[in-house]
Amino acid sequence: MSAHTVLQGRNSTVTISADGPFTIIGERINPTGRKVFAEQLRNGDLSTVSEDAIAQVQAGADMLDVNAGIPLVDEPQLLMDMLRTVQEAVDVPICIDSSVIEALEAGLSVYEGRALVNSVTAEDERLEEILPLVAAHGAAVIGLANDETGIPETPEKRLECARKIVDAAQGHGIAKDDVIIDPLAMTVGADTEAVTTTLRTISLIRDELGVNMCLGASNVSFGLPQRHVLNAAFLPMAMAAGLTSAIMSAAPICIEAVRAADLLLGHDAWGASWIAAHRARQAAAATG
Amino acid sequence: MSAHTVLQGRNSTVTISADGPFTIIGERINPTGRKVFAEQLRNGDLSTVSEDAIAQVQAGADMLDVNAGIPLVDEPQLLMDMLRTVQEAVDVPICIDSSVIEALEAGLSVYEGRALVNSVTAEDERLEEILPLVAAHGAAVIGLANDETGIPETPEKRLECARKIVDAAQGHGIAKDDVIIDPLAMTVGADTEAVTTTLRTISLIRDELGVNMCLGASNVSFGLPQRHVLNAAFLPMAMAAGLTSAIMSAAPICIEAVRAADLLLGHDAWGASWIAAHRARQAAAATG
Repeated sequence: MSAHTVLQGRNSTVTISADGPFTIIGERINPTGRKVFAEQLRNGDLSTVSEDAIAQVQAGADMLDVNAGIPLVDEPQLLMDMLRTVQEAVDVPICIDSSVIEALEAGLSVYEGRALVNSVTAEDERLEEILPLVAAHGAAVIGLANDETGIPETPEKRLECARKIVDAAQGHGIAKDDVIIDPLAMTVGADTEAVTTTLRTISLIRDELGVNMCLGASNVSFGLPQRHVLNAAFLPMAMAAGLTSAIMSAAPICIEAVRAADLLLGHDAWGASWIAAHRARQAAAATG
Repeated sequence: MSAHTVLQGRNSTVTISADGPFTIIGERINPTGRKVFAEQLRNGDLSTVSEDAIAQVQAGADMLDVNAGIPLVDEPQLLMDMLRTVQEAVDVPICIDSSVIEALEAGLSVYEGRALVNSVTAEDERLEEILPLVAAHGAAVIGLANDETGIPETPEKRLECARKIVDAAQGHGIAKDDVIIDPLAMTVGADTEAVTTTLRTISLIRDELGVNMCLGASNVSFGLPQRHVLNAAFLPMAMAAGLTSAIMSAAPICIEAVRAADLLLGHDAWGASWIAAHRARQAAAATG
């Protein structure tokens, strides 16, 4: 039995599972590395938030990640405003993304549906802070496979962190189905073994824990040219190893790589979705 | 120690190995399913052979497959003519592709360099016919992982076929390094398990036999729309599982997926080739 993580928006449901198609979580609503966007948010201009929400869902995102991490900003307030804006623009479940507990708390208090909290780690203090909040809101949570000692170099140590998070969550009444492990993706530009380590971690966690997994797929190409092409090659590998969702770019080459891999891995029987998408594009091209 | 298969053209050498970048074998010089090309060949017009050879090598192919299989044609003679034409047009090692022993024999007799013979199977009769020929010419050989009973459904049975081929080759004085196993790729359009079976076969053969592997990558998308996108998603998966070469399309999206996967899997240290290719494209765009 593979794990099933059920997330909800206002009137939408997404189930993350190894049985079905991969879950694409759009990464774009995040001011990190986006100077103009950060400046807009600082000035209370949320127009890009709506635009990015709509564009990513139209491009094929199943869910959206929302992050309000800007230095010297009232992050809880901004995150609430951004979540309200996104939920008015599109109806998909949201991944509430912050390292600040007060921001997660504020975000969960206004979110309509069943959110995915991004994230906890295997650090004792973080587990004790965040898991009660996740449990109180009946949410699901992403657990990063690192602890007080940093990011483990070996898949086996990342598995240990993952196991600790799953156990701690269960101790707080959060079902294993509602814990999604992030096996951690680092850039191959800094470490030639980075991706193979991530792939082995994914296989190991799949085989030993059987939980859903999610990672920030774009990390693998950080600092390299043609990032979308690298990301599009990485995603099918990670999916074949057992990854079930990713926070990722909604660029067409990335979305298509995921949907192609769904078909190849038997999660789009007889290519029904693939062929329907192809026909829809043909029809759009003919009338456009 | 991973296997090293050394192939040669007139003045070129390619080494297929799990240590280095993936070997791309251009699939295009094959009349199967190409009516106009087949008709040209039938009429002795080899101009497309030269053009396809040059175009595929320019696009990034490391080697070329050459097949002359047209019904009611003198295949040995045509294959000799095609091989001479290709070797005059480009200097890369060639995969001599025929199911007809006389054609392989004729091809090997004119080929300048160290060829890859495509292919033998685990059928006793084929092994006894083809392996002595491969040994006599000091060539390398592709062994398809099927036998008299057809294409095995399970990875374990394909491994058995592979082992039988490797053993038989060694009995004929052909080193394990010079046997490349084809784990067999079928279309996912006919069997939703086809690709996962192939991927498991690749991992199993890597772990148990440690030989090089090559497959006809485009088979996976047969009968489906947007074949290049599917093939480009398949190749990184197969590479991560242990595939070391493929007979494949030299379409840009497929070549880029392979080179991206090389980088991600640590076979292009610090992205040196990836970055050089990117800069060359930028320079070409600036001067074009």
